[in-house]
Formats: sequence, structure tokens, C-alpha cells
Amino acid sequence: MEKTNKHSISFIYLNGHSYTAMRKEFLYLEIANRIAFQITSGNIKAGDRLPSVRQLCQLHGIGMNTAKRIFLELESRSLIETRPQSGYFVSQQLASKLPLPQSSSPSLIANDKEPIDLTTKVYGNIGNEDLTLFSIGVPSGNLLPLAKLKKEIIRATTTLHEGGTEYEPLQGNVKLRRTVAARSPSWGGRLSEQDIVTTNGGMNALSLCLMALARPGDTVAMESPCYPGIFQLALSLGLKVLELPTHPVTGIDIDTLRKVVSKINLCLLIPNFNTPLGSCMPDAHKQEVVDLLATHAIPLIEDDIYGDLHFGPIRPKCCKAFDKGGNVLLCSSVSKTLAPGYRVGWIAPGNYLPQIMKLKLVHALSSTSIIQEAVGNFLWTGNYDKHLRQLRRTLADNYQRYAQTIAENFPAGTRVNHPQGGLALWVELPPHIDTRRLHDLAIRQGISIAPGRIFTLQEQFQHCMRLCIGLPWSDHIRLKLKQLGALAKAL
Amino acid sequence: MEKTNKHSISFIYLNGHSYTAMRKEFLYLEIANRIAFQITSGNIKAGDRLPSVRQLCQLHGIGMNTAKRIFLELESRSLIETRPQSGYFVSQQLASKLPLPQSSSPSLIANDKEPIDLTTKVYGNIGNEDLTLFSIGVPSGNLLPLAKLKKEIIRATTTLHEGGTEYEPLQGNVKLRRTVAARSPSWGGRLSEQDIVTTNGGMNALSLCLMALARPGDTVAMESPCYPGIFQLALSLGLKVLELPTHPVTGIDIDTLRKVVSKINLCLLIPNFNTPLGSCMPDAHKQEVVDLLATHAIPLIEDDIYGDLHFGPIRPKCCKAFDKGGNVLLCSSVSKTLAPGYRVGWIAPGNYLPQIMKLKLVHALSSTSIIQEAVGNFLWTGNYDKHLRQLRRTLADNYQRYAQTIAENFPAGTRVNHPQGGLALWVELPPHIDTRRLHDLAIRQGISIAPGRIFTLQEQFQHCMRLCIGLPWSDHIRLKLKQLGALAKAL
Repeated sequence: MEKTNKHSISFIYLNGHSYTAMRKEFLYLEIANRIAFQITSGNIKAGDRLPSVRQLCQLHGIGMNTAKRIFLELESRSLIETRPQSGYFVSQQLASKLPLPQSSSPSLIANDKEPIDLTTKVYGNIGNEDLTLFSIGVPSGNLLPLAKLKKEIIRATTTLHEGGTEYEPLQGNVKLRRTVAARSPSWGGRLSEQDIVTTNGGMNALSLCLMALARPGDTVAMESPCYPGIFQLALSLGLKVLELPTHPVTGIDIDTLRKVVSKINLCLLIPNFNTPLGSCMPDAHKQEVVDLLATHAIPLIEDDIYGDLHFGPIRPKCCKAFDKGGNVLLCSSVSKTLAPGYRVGWIAPGNYLPQIMKLKLVHALSSTSIIQEAVGNFLWTGNYDKHLRQLRRTLADNYQRYAQTIAENFPAGTRVNHPQGGLALWVELPPHIDTRRLHDLAIRQGISIAPGRIFTLQEQFQHCMRLCIGLPWSDHIRLKLKQLGALAKAL
Repeated sequence: MEKTNKHSISFIYLNGHSYTAMRKEFLYLEIANRIAFQITSGNIKAGDRLPSVRQLCQLHGIGMNTAKRIFLELESRSLIETRPQSGYFVSQQLASKLPLPQSSSPSLIANDKEPIDLTTKVYGNIGNEDLTLFSIGVPSGNLLPLAKLKKEIIRATTTLHEGGTEYEPLQGNVKLRRTVAARSPSWGGRLSEQDIVTTNGGMNALSLCLMALARPGDTVAMESPCYPGIFQLALSLGLKVLELPTHPVTGIDIDTLRKVVSKINLCLLIPNFNTPLGSCMPDAHKQEVVDLLATHAIPLIEDDIYGDLHFGPIRPKCCKAFDKGGNVLLCSSVSKTLAPGYRVGWIAPGNYLPQIMKLKLVHALSSTSIIQEAVGNFLWTGNYDKHLRQLRRTLADNYQRYAQTIAENFPAGTRVNHPQGGLALWVELPPHIDTRRLHDLAIRQGISIAPGRIFTLQEQFQHCMRLCIGLPWSDHIRLKLKQLGALAKAL
């Protein structure tokens, strides 16, 4: 495997979170992203005046052309506006930010009731091209580097021994494991390729972890709301689910976790930009949770599939970064960033590596050689980072536009999360609006949403819904959001 | 999906087992295969005279050139020999057939002991190019249609929506399911695409079936000896294994199954050319087992990964062909015929389709779109049947050569199975020879074998071993078999 000089991964990651050493041509993007983050996080308010072109040059030691490019970039994202003879200002649109949804407060009794059968109804629509699928939590194909991926697939069929028809080593493609390890400093980790086992996607990673750690009757603590597939996985293994109160900005309530810690056998969290709530646990919270669980010898399964989708300049750390004793099993995949249909994921299982390897052997034997080789090669080149920068910018931009359109068109009293990354908008409508009814009405207008009730095993979130921001913004999307708002108002 | 006129699948399969309607250019092969089967199955004995060219023409209504081609083909497989002025005779070599191994007689007490840790030692050698791997049960890459598979992969990345990066429908690629259904008459089935769920390879298919049907503590009946991965899978799910006495020609002993039927919760069989024993249950036995299990409402998981590798002209039926009530879950894959590293398999789960779909959703979400599309397309064209004919001929030939070399070089008292298909030779050495010791000695001479003890959870088969016939025959292979025989003699 050769590194390209221009996109040396080690060069980027040796500097930890600092991206300033990047190629000059990306410098403008880097600075634009930092300013965008200041705006979207509310540090610079709507209507605030920005530095002039000249001031920006002095501030960052950049040339006039780069500075102008930065302002153009921010304008194209509707974050700033030019006022003739006056300069650049933070866009007034942003003033209309809706309030945050409330922290969830589920019952703390562990639950093994089957979830209501809404998932089939909602996800039976995958692939229906007549629908605007706000319900599906993946980036649209238009946002993916399809041509480059195709090249890597072809290259893999050419370079792999026997064209990739042979069984892969059990632990998985070595290039993929090496590049996942090489990227680990970006989230505060220091993995080696030996620490990683590849899997058939992210759900398969979680499945192996739960099978390795839990016995029927065990209780697993999770965020609430949470991705329904994870509830179903836990229930299918005979586990009980304890839903934790979760805040839309800071994630699970640690005091509650402390209270129930003696009642649980393991914990499964999506600390960074989880779906549907979009929360991102602060570092101090991650540290606290890792320490608390380690003290009680309760393993933590950490799902980090959204971590690379941060809107701001800083990639959030993983809980695994604070794991001293090998008690955290970090799972991830490329399904939310690169190619859902490839089914490429991995686990860094800490102390549980032997159990995971054994389970992979008997449940899967090995992974698909060609696809893992192709993804391994793609991740190793600078192409992945280039793609991620573009994707993050689009999603950040989409979030602004969605939130703005919702603020303008949804019923009074609507609340919406302010995610700093990921793919999910969590919309809390006034309490009398049942989003299951809204779902059925919306389908007739060609709109698919994910009702809040599917994200819990309890009776909550009836007036909430998740909207995915992974579709490219267009007048059509704006129109469909307006229609959805009108339907909600009518209810 | 278009059918090619020249290789119309429906045309072949509408005729059931009759291949006579095939293209003229394959006719010679078809007849050669029939004669080869008569020879290898012992119906025509070593030294027997064959019809003359002219007689063969009359017998089959073929031309002189075709008849000559048939004899050339049989000569190239060392099955016949020419005696000048006298005609064609069955090769004398075949006289040296060794006796069959005995039927196994395991204890009938269900077992959940961990298997001895030999598997890692034996299979840790995968990919070691310094070793002659008689231990690995797959066809060598030289025997696979690599160029054509590569073309199908590239085609899939081009034709699939969004380059195959999208999630596939949960049930799996429709072309793959359609072609698996279209091929089902070859084993006596009548499946439609709706009856089939695709999986990530054959082991994954078995894993989903066992998870759907069994609860911890349940007992599953299997062949003895049996592929060790299946034991490990069952044990990892908390099941007990009841090993059934198994005959090297006819498979499990049905009277014993009848005796223990009230003690078991399910049954998992590889009725066609199973590894390592190579037995193939007669149709009447299949029917009897299916009826017996149905009467007791015990599901049958049928693994048919070797069924397409029949040496004779007739593709054996599956148990599923006799399944009236949907009680048989048929599993298969392309790992033994096309591409082990692709991880493409499927299940026809009968009544258990909803449970299998639900488990696939939570443990895997979906399969790899590109690979399933490529395999679906390849199977649909005549290329797969063309490849299978070639592969079967090579394996049948290899079996002859292996058996002959073993007969000439192994210790007196050696027995070997006479498989009519598949990839496995099961060699029973004189009782004092411990094949675990033989394994260790052989490794030092660059030879890897699979000791008999790994194919059971009980204390049996210590003097047996499995040799895979999937490596292309060569002087090197002959030499290594001779060395192995010399080592066994020295023990």
C-alpha cells in the first residue's frame, strides 16, 4: 500500500485535531468551516458583523484571494450576507432558531416488550422513488464519491490474489484494519491493526458485541430515543432494555446511569451525533461514563458511525479514547459516510477480541474480500478526507436550511434539535400532534417520515419525528417540508 | 435481466434431470460424464471392454467425431485405456479401489463440551503458500472463472443504482433470488424468488436458521463426522449436539434418528456430499427423514453447499424436494463452487421466512449489493453451468488420482470413501495411527491435513483424516501424497 505524498494520512493525523497543516488549497475551506461552526453554534449571532477581507487576511496570515473565497463559501451556505458598502454579516435567517426539544424522561424499568410494529411500515418504503424519504438515515447517493469507489472495486478485483475469490483472514482485510488504526488519533485513540476486527457493516458489529457479552435475561442500558434496529437486536437475543434519560445536546444523564448501574449488565451508547437525537456527549461526560462503567466492570459498546460527520472543525473524541482497561468495544462502519450497501464495518473490542473473533468465525466465517480491500484502499488515500469535508459541509448546510424551513412552516410550539453533526433532525411537535397519523397523511403526499414512537419501547415521543438531512437540498425538498408543516398544522 | 438464447436456463431445467437437450457442443461431455459415472460407481469394472466408436454412434445417435471426442475425454481422465487393435477398456488402475471406511458409531448422548482446540492450529495455515493445503475444503482459485467473475463485478458497479452503494432490499438481490429459484428444479424443487432470503455466505445462513429455531439448552442432531464450524456455531448458541451414526455412502442411520427423535429439538444435515464423509443420502432416505421430522414437528436445516458438485450426470435431490409442509430450511452458497471470499449464500426457509427476515434485519441489515448482483447475473447466464461442468470433471478426475495414489502409497489397512461428488476424501488409517501426530509431522514436510478428531465432539476418528481434492492435480500433489503415505507408514 503506497501513501500519496499529497494526501499523507499520517501527516494530517500526527497533528491531532489541528487541520492547519493541510494543503493550501483546502485552507480556505478549513477557515470557512471554523467560522461556520462559530455561527451555527451561536457564538456569533445573527446580524453580527464579520471581519473585513483585509482583517481576515491579517487574522489568519492568508492572501486576499483566499479570504474572498472564504466569504464566497459562507455566502453559498446562506450563513452570511453581503450588505453593499457595509461588509459581511451573519445571516438574519439564523435568528429564527427554534427552541431545543426537552430531555427525555423514560421509565427506568428494564423492558423486553416487542416494539410496536411500525418499523416495517416505515422502512418498507426504502427504494420507493415516488416518495421523498425523510425517514431513511443515510446520505443520498448524490453525495457519495461513486466514481472513485467504482475504481477501487475494480482495482481490488485486479490486485487481490485469485481476484478476491479466496477467504479473507478471519480478522479481516489488513489494509482496512491498518487505515482504521491510522485514523484513530482523529478521535483520540491509538489503535494498531491488531486491535481491530472487520465486520459486515455496523449492525453486524453490534450483533457480535452483544452476542459476546450478554446472556438472555441480561439488561442493557441505551439512550432514549434510540435507533430501533438496536432495540430489536437486543430483544432478539433475549435481553431487556433500560432506556436512559437523554439530553439533545449532551446525551445520557450520568446521574441516572449511576443510579441504575447495579441493575444493568452492559451499556450501549452512540455518544457522537446519535440518531435520532443528534446529541454529542462532552469529553468530560465520556470520561465519567467510561470510568463509572469500568469501576462496575460493565462493558461499554460504543457505536461511532456518525462521529466523522461533525459540522464544526473538531472531530469529537470517542469514549474509547478514555478507556484505560480495554472495557470499551468501539464499533463503526462506512455506512453513514461512504456506502451503506457495501456492508463494511469494524470493531475495536479491547479485552473482548478473542470472543469476537470466535463469534465472527462461526456466524460469518469471513467478510467479503473485494469490498473490504476497496474500502481499505479508499480510506487510506486522501480521497476519503476530501469526500468527508465536502459531505460535512453539505450536511451542515442542509441542517441550516431544514431548520429554517421548519421554523417558518411548522406549527407554533415546534422544537427542533441543534445537532453539531450527523444526519438527524429530531422534531418535537406540539403534544396533541400524533406523528403516526402525520406519517399516514404525509405518505399520501409522497413524504415519508420516521414517527418518534419507533425510537423507544415505551409510550413516549408520540408527538416527535425524525427527519434525515441526507437528501441534497432543492426546491422540491423545501416544498415537501412546507407540505409537512401544513399537514402538522392541520392536525 | 436477459436470457441468452444459447444458454437458456429454463430450457435446461424444464427437462428436469435430462441434459440431452443441451447444446450440441456439450453433448460429447454429457455422454462422457455418464460413462465416467458408470465407471467410477463400479457399474462397469476395471478391464471391461467399452463399445467401439461405431457402436457408440449407434447407441447415442451421434457422429463419429463426437464419439471419438468422448473416448479422448475419458482417456484424458485416466478412466479408460486404448489397446491397439482391440479397442477401449476401463483402466486397470481402478481395480485398486480401497475398501470403504466403516459407518460411524458415536455415543447418542447430546454433548455441549467445547471441541478440542485443534481447529485454530489446522486452519491458522490458510494463506500459507509454503504449504500444500489438503486441509482446506474449497476449490483452488485455478479452478474458478476469475475473469468472468471480475467482469460481472464491474458490470454490477455500473448498472446498479448509485453504483451499488445503496442498501439492498432486506430479502436480498432479486436477480440472485430469481436465479436460485430458476435452478431449483435441478434438485427437485419448485421455489419462487419470494421463497428465498440471501445471506452473507453459507455459515451465515446456518447461523440465522439456528438462531431462529433453537433456544439455549436445545439439542440439535447432526451427522458424525461433521464440519467443525457447525459444531462451534451450535455450541456458541448454547445448544447441545447429538451426533448420529453416519454411513460413508448413504448418510445418517435413520433407525437411530427414529430412536432419538423425541430427545431432539432440531436436525441439521448435509445430505449431499457432506464434508468430511462425502455421503449422499438416497432419495428414499431423504423422503423418510423429511416425513419422520415433519411428524414430530422438528425442523430440518438442510445444508446443500456441495450438491452442485456431483461427479455423475445426475444432480442429487435435496430433502427440500420432499418437504410438503414447509418444515425444511434449505441453505446453500457459492462458496464451494464459485468464490469462497464473496460470502454469498441464501436460505429457502419454508414456514420460517418471517423469523429469518427479522433476524437478518437486526444482525446484518442487508447484504453487499454489488457482490450479490454480480453473482446473480453470473448464475443466470450459461456461464455458471459451463463452469460447473468443468469443475465437476476436474474434481471427479482428482478423486480418481488421489484415491489411486493413496491406494499405492498408504499403509495396508487404509480405507477411503468413494464419494460421488463434493470436495472431501475421508481416509481411515489403521487404528494405531494418530492423525494428530501425523498432522504435526506432515506440517514439517510442507503438508497440511485435517485430523479426524476435529470433525466430532466425541473421542472418535483419531485415526482418520480429511483430504480436500480441490487442488489442481500435478506431480507436486502426487509427491506430497506419497510423502504423507510414507509418514503414515512410519508411525
